[in-house]
Amino acid sequence: MTAIQVPMPASTAASITPAAPLAQIARDTRQAAQQLATLSTAAKNQAIEAIAQALAADAEAIQAANAADCEAALADNLAKPLYGRLKLDGVKLKGAIAGVRDVAKLPDPVGTVQIHRELDAGLDLQRVTCPLGVLGVIFESRPDAVMQISSLAVKSGNGVILKGGKEAVRSCQALVQAIRTGLSHAGVNPNAVQLLTTREETRALLALDKDVDLIIPRGSNEFVQFVQDHTRIPVLGHADGICHLYVDAVADLDQAIAIAVDAKVGYPSACNAIETLLIHQDIAATALPQLAAALTDKGVVLRGDQATQQLWPAAQPVTEADWSTEYSDLILAVRVVASVEAAIAHINTYGSRHTEAIVTEDAAAAALFRNQVNAAGVYHNCSTRFADGFRYGFGAEVGISTQSMPPRGPVGLEGLVTYKYHLIGQGHIVATYAGENAQPFTHRDLS
Amino acid sequence: MTAIQVPMPASTAASITPAAPLAQIARDTRQAAQQLATLSTAAKNQAIEAIAQALAADAEAIQAANAADCEAALADNLAKPLYGRLKLDGVKLKGAIAGVRDVAKLPDPVGTVQIHRELDAGLDLQRVTCPLGVLGVIFESRPDAVMQISSLAVKSGNGVILKGGKEAVRSCQALVQAIRTGLSHAGVNPNAVQLLTTREETRALLALDKDVDLIIPRGSNEFVQFVQDHTRIPVLGHADGICHLYVDAVADLDQAIAIAVDAKVGYPSACNAIETLLIHQDIAATALPQLAAALTDKGVVLRGDQATQQLWPAAQPVTEADWSTEYSDLILAVRVVASVEAAIAHINTYGSRHTEAIVTEDAAAAALFRNQVNAAGVYHNCSTRFADGFRYGFGAEVGISTQSMPPRGPVGLEGLVTYKYHLIGQGHIVATYAGENAQPFTHRDLS
Repeated sequence: MTAIQVPMPASTAASITPAAPLAQIARDTRQAAQQLATLSTAAKNQAIEAIAQALAADAEAIQAANAADCEAALADNLAKPLYGRLKLDGVKLKGAIAGVRDVAKLPDPVGTVQIHRELDAGLDLQRVTCPLGVLGVIFESRPDAVMQISSLAVKSGNGVILKGGKEAVRSCQALVQAIRTGLSHAGVNPNAVQLLTTREETRALLALDKDVDLIIPRGSNEFVQFVQDHTRIPVLGHADGICHLYVDAVADLDQAIAIAVDAKVGYPSACNAIETLLIHQDIAATALPQLAAALTDKGVVLRGDQATQQLWPAAQPVTEADWSTEYSDLILAVRVVASVEAAIAHINTYGSRHTEAIVTEDAAAAALFRNQVNAAGVYHNCSTRFADGFRYGFGAEVGISTQSMPPRGPVGLEGLVTYKYHLIGQGHIVATYAGENAQPFTHRDLS
Repeated sequence: MTAIQVPMPASTAASITPAAPLAQIARDTRQAAQQLATLSTAAKNQAIEAIAQALAADAEAIQAANAADCEAALADNLAKPLYGRLKLDGVKLKGAIAGVRDVAKLPDPVGTVQIHRELDAGLDLQRVTCPLGVLGVIFESRPDAVMQISSLAVKSGNGVILKGGKEAVRSCQALVQAIRTGLSHAGVNPNAVQLLTTREETRALLALDKDVDLIIPRGSNEFVQFVQDHTRIPVLGHADGICHLYVDAVADLDQAIAIAVDAKVGYPSACNAIETLLIHQDIAATALPQLAAALTDKGVVLRGDQATQQLWPAAQPVTEADWSTEYSDLILAVRVVASVEAAIAHINTYGSRHTEAIVTEDAAAAALFRNQVNAAGVYHNCSTRFADGFRYGFGAEVGISTQSMPPRGPVGLEGLVTYKYHLIGQGHIVATYAGENAQPFTHRDLS
């Protein structure tokens, strides 16, 4: 193990030597990734199993490092929720190691032939999925993210440069040391997984647009926004989750109530929770008081427009800013709208293109909503909270993207690969297919 | 036609009234695009046919506008190649109108179901392709691009904001006027196709990251680089095309010579032409003089490293800068390398991730090259110049992307669409699938 360049163990974290310049780290990562890209599915799965074994073998050191992080966090008065995410006890670690092994069971996203076409006799075009190259993953607190991301990176044939939160530095170092040990036990260059530990390195990482192919930020909205604003590298993720539930004129009211409660109350700080409830004016007199009662009963504070306040006087007055606010809390903005078109216009103006739902028995209204709402998920008669890679059956979730271009919505392993065109000929040149006696292409699909 | 807000005809171009503020234009375009997104394939094809008819009906006015542009260009001493691209005579216009009709024949990229999965009984997930929304297309000279891009935008259900070169302003205005007339004849909101005419608007367009979903720049490398450097909107395109041909130790020399000549001489300013020739040292003594003779015979000037100069003394000395230069001319850098690994390392250092080719009879070397070269196209025993949407059989080419993330390489109509997740339930909520008595998902693929 002496040959492997790894950060020092947790106990000497304070005396850690400065890392190699970041550009060199990125190049080392890319070189290791080049080797990963050529590994078979079986070889990658063996590497993942070796990671799981190394993590289990180092469990004691990892928990000791985490205990030191937690102690320092208590001394620093770290906020309670952050502290909860930082803590990595034996049960959580065991679960995370099981999660690493689950990644081995996922289908290999590399090597899928998407297009196979004969351009002419003996000239064979294939579009084949391949790794992106080097991922940059920046996360706050949660040290368990290190294990999940590293195994997903190996499975997809990518190198990964991790940057964890300052408060989790000892935990991350112990975890990455074990992961790198596992990789080298499996004969894989451990430089495929790297750890950065300083804040300055985050900015430097975001500037490496020639060496890093995708940035995945995990953390608060402000944090993701910061990342998006400071890099030219593609970013997989979303800053805001401003989701709406629209209750149409001909809605099943019981469904509407159950969905509204589920989408708001189940986990209010989830990005797929709703922030605004829109109600068609024709059903508002009946529906709004019942919806409001059910939500209030669960502790939700309502902020309504004038029409809402008339039907539910306890509602606080809503302001323009509310429509663009992700409360992440038991607060819900409510607006009465004149039509499905008005609901769509509201959503396309204020929504964050995450997930939007309509409750209606009117198929035409549902179709219009589906076609015209601009969002990664457009739902009919179900809760926005289904927007999740695991619930979609992707087996893992890399992130949820609210960008227009693919990958969009909940992204599984396929978000970590791209494709190449392989063209295999027998000396074919384009001159054959140009000019007066141009030979035509056959363009015959072979699969 | 009076109700349609179109730019003034060419003859009064000088007195044109200022356009609406750009943000308003973008919103108008998005609204029109929302309608386009709901049209059937037949309705979109009818709109494209109406565009073709309107262009044919306005042919005289369009040619007059173009003649005025050409006259002004002559007076301004426009560079010859730009002038050639600006000129839109009767034959070229007829060809472009036929090209518009060809777009109607392409398969509709919208509405393809990519995933269809039952999450649980009655809870149906579909991933369906849909338009991106609003495209921003910025091009130099070539007024014929207006017709191709507009018809591709309509076919893919997108609105488009066009910005043509200053020297083509009258031609573009006449073309867009005809296209908008065609759209309104087909009952489509003509705001789906907009034209900007001033340089200030280009910068303003690039800043509209909330209103424009994709920027497609068409022009010189410097121009594309400028666009990439001044926008947060995704950019489809490539600034550089630094492609390599590597002749391996066990190559068919006749193939290598034919491919080298085709890839360098056929159209030296094409982005898929080669800029550097790499030759394995074991074959160099025989191969290099023959390759050099064939290329020199076609007027190619060679710039070689020391080993090259020893074998072909007429070669000029190469400098470090040559390896990163897109000559777009009959100049070729030549380097002798020690191995396929050295060739891969050179390409991954200096290439622009466009298209790279190996000539070899060694299947293992070809596989290594395919797996480890980082480029949109990795070819074996054929010319790099096949990298082209039409040659790939896409029916149209929107651009060639050298980014890592998809869409990559030559991009057809599918590069103008994204996807949405539709989830249709019967009142389903996530609470059912959480907690102690959590119901499992079925995750049953239905297609």
